[in-house]
Amino acid sequence: MTKITRFDTFDVRFPTSRTLAGSDAMNAAPDYSAAYLVIRTDASDPALAGHGFAFTIGRGNDVQLAAIRLLEPFLAGQDLDEILADLGGLGRRLVSDSPLHWLGPSCGVMHMATGAVLNACWDLAARRAGKPLWLLLAEMSPQEITGLIDFRYLTDALTPDEALALLQRGAASRAARIAELGPGPGWLGYSDKRLAALCAEAIEDGFTQVKIKVGAALEDDKRRCAIAREVAGDDIAIAIDAKQVWDVPTAIAWIRELAPFRPAWVEEPTAPADILGTAAIRRGVRPVLVATGEHVANPVMFKQLLQAGAIDIMQIDACRVAGVNENLANLLLAAKFGVPVCPHAGGVGLCEIVQHLSMFDFVALSGTTAGRRIEWIDHLHEHFTAPARVVRGRYLAPTAPGASTEMHPESLAEYCYPSGPAWRDGAMP
Amino acid sequence: MTKITRFDTFDVRFPTSRTLAGSDAMNAAPDYSAAYLVIRTDASDPALAGHGFAFTIGRGNDVQLAAIRLLEPFLAGQDLDEILADLGGLGRRLVSDSPLHWLGPSCGVMHMATGAVLNACWDLAARRAGKPLWLLLAEMSPQEITGLIDFRYLTDALTPDEALALLQRGAASRAARIAELGPGPGWLGYSDKRLAALCAEAIEDGFTQVKIKVGAALEDDKRRCAIAREVAGDDIAIAIDAKQVWDVPTAIAWIRELAPFRPAWVEEPTAPADILGTAAIRRGVRPVLVATGEHVANPVMFKQLLQAGAIDIMQIDACRVAGVNENLANLLLAAKFGVPVCPHAGGVGLCEIVQHLSMFDFVALSGTTAGRRIEWIDHLHEHFTAPARVVRGRYLAPTAPGASTEMHPESLAEYCYPSGPAWRDGAMP
Repeated sequence: MTKITRFDTFDVRFPTSRTLAGSDAMNAAPDYSAAYLVIRTDASDPALAGHGFAFTIGRGNDVQLAAIRLLEPFLAGQDLDEILADLGGLGRRLVSDSPLHWLGPSCGVMHMATGAVLNACWDLAARRAGKPLWLLLAEMSPQEITGLIDFRYLTDALTPDEALALLQRGAASRAARIAELGPGPGWLGYSDKRLAALCAEAIEDGFTQVKIKVGAALEDDKRRCAIAREVAGDDIAIAIDAKQVWDVPTAIAWIRELAPFRPAWVEEPTAPADILGTAAIRRGVRPVLVATGEHVANPVMFKQLLQAGAIDIMQIDACRVAGVNENLANLLLAAKFGVPVCPHAGGVGLCEIVQHLSMFDFVALSGTTAGRRIEWIDHLHEHFTAPARVVRGRYLAPTAPGASTEMHPESLAEYCYPSGPAWRDGAMP
Repeated sequence: MTKITRFDTFDVRFPTSRTLAGSDAMNAAPDYSAAYLVIRTDASDPALAGHGFAFTIGRGNDVQLAAIRLLEPFLAGQDLDEILADLGGLGRRLVSDSPLHWLGPSCGVMHMATGAVLNACWDLAARRAGKPLWLLLAEMSPQEITGLIDFRYLTDALTPDEALALLQRGAASRAARIAELGPGPGWLGYSDKRLAALCAEAIEDGFTQVKIKVGAALEDDKRRCAIAREVAGDDIAIAIDAKQVWDVPTAIAWIRELAPFRPAWVEEPTAPADILGTAAIRRGVRPVLVATGEHVANPVMFKQLLQAGAIDIMQIDACRVAGVNENLANLLLAAKFGVPVCPHAGGVGLCEIVQHLSMFDFVALSGTTAGRRIEWIDHLHEHFTAPARVVRGRYLAPTAPGASTEMHPESLAEYCYPSGPAWRDGAMP
């Protein structure tokens, strides 16, 4: 019998604020960080461990890590087989533990901690199965998938039977799509570029959609959108990302001013929890499409965004919600409402893990990549043992067992905060 | 010049799970706890300190405390006068700090930490002014009040001008209402009783409304509601509290079954973030009224509950949102939509602090106590230096300077977790 022994945790921070990588209208100087977790076992193979993390942008990564450690007693000493045989049950126990629920509920630090732990368990499950996570999920039966989901607050929009029917619809042709992803051209990415001048480079690299950040100053945005559109021509899609800076009337007015540059969609036009506000914005800016989700805390919020007709594109994040389990619910909700899912990524490790969810969606649920893309920023991938690979604008399907969440031990040591060399010297590595 | 010097923090937990005080359908065995903060200054008077806390139910109180300590650098070393002169600015800096915002956004552990810090600042401000918090707030000008509020995501429902008009409407007759609260009969409370048999005691104590918890088993609820109604007669209101246990269809069906017992309102029928679900429940259970809010994280969520017509009663909590500042926004939103505010309380210290907000609402904003009540549970008050006082079912207006948030040093020592005597011995004190 293999037992889960302990959590090893690491406060990993990359000093990205020194180059302003990742800065935008809302986040002036982020240090991309991971509250990083390894779930250890007593297996003879030391590689049988689970890797997961919460993504933060610096300050507070230690508190995020403390929240993850709070969950160690739920797993330490448990039989690995029993835990992995019922990850749905584990998810429900963690999310509904009443003192921890009080600290959310189902949002913020505690919920992201739950996500890190569940994702680490999924990494462990996929490693043990010798499969990449997307394939492990794609080969599960529809009943196994619905058993992973907590339907408690979703039934008015999606019942277990409806979820089952959606999965069964996709089940017949799964094998063909698995084969397609294997050696194939991969899954569409889109490139997150801070400056319009970098669009040319993205297009040169084979991307067919780029994203630029807006929302600080209207005239500046118009100028930058014009440059981007000129560089991109008519065949390249340009998404714009407002990072929650607007109230509802400002969002509508501002987006209308940028509409002539034909944005593919606008991301996070207002507070991510403002369902009714986002719906009003969507109505007010047609034909510009509205996308949101990277800060949406749980499936109850996504359910309402769909019920209210607030979004054209659902942007799940692998680490914001309570892990794979809740993202399966999010994918099913999107399928029910016919809304494409284009995951948020870019933060350290987010591209690595979230690609598995998109590929599961393609194989087992939506059956198509039409209108679907995964965000891509080409930085910090070198710290992962199985980095996401994008070739000619397309994500290649991961082949290594696991969830692609494992970081190199050298990276954990180098960027350990505040004692690691990257921080001690105060210099860029 | 007086400087803020440091945060002193205390992990205070009361072993209430040993008697199951506070247990309900969602929370089986809570240990009522405070992540407790004292903001120290270098003033010659050591009493010039600010006391605040986040309320939790045990596990994770340490993480909650770590989140509070994360905010110390925003205040330590600052000039006290400058901070207190612009608590609106401080609130905006804390809520919009981008790495901390990432950890919410505006919900959960990080947001409650912001609430504890802002409430402690308000306690300090009221102490320095020599006034109870409610009076300090009630005597501020309408412009000063609106300056405390972050309207960023509220303008589609409430503009600064509208807020100003609401406050100006109440300003004329403030003095009379301040006088009324002084020696008067006080503000209506309502008693939270776990067992119907205790209703008689509550009525004997002068309460005109009691609350019982429901949601575990329908037949049991019917039996208990029948007993409560029989004991209470027709003149006493009975609220029922479901503590988020139902999905939308279950809530509607269950509440309809309990409707014959004429509940005054139903609290938290489903997930507190399910705005559209709560609205559907309200439509489905008329004439039973719907109340929610103790787990509603911020004014953006309250705004939507009001816009969607989801609630008849707004239940603010003093420690869930980002402190006094956000609760002022909540009170103004309620006034705009004509919905009465009946605060959640009962958790350790919640009655103490939230009464100030209700009394401000009465004096400066709503101008009435009709349909308004503050929850009351008679336990743990003895740990506070200025405990809330309820006489014949009515809260007496606090007279001591401050926000009534200060705990006795002896209580902090006794219930310090895990080293305090109350925990070392494993015995009830």
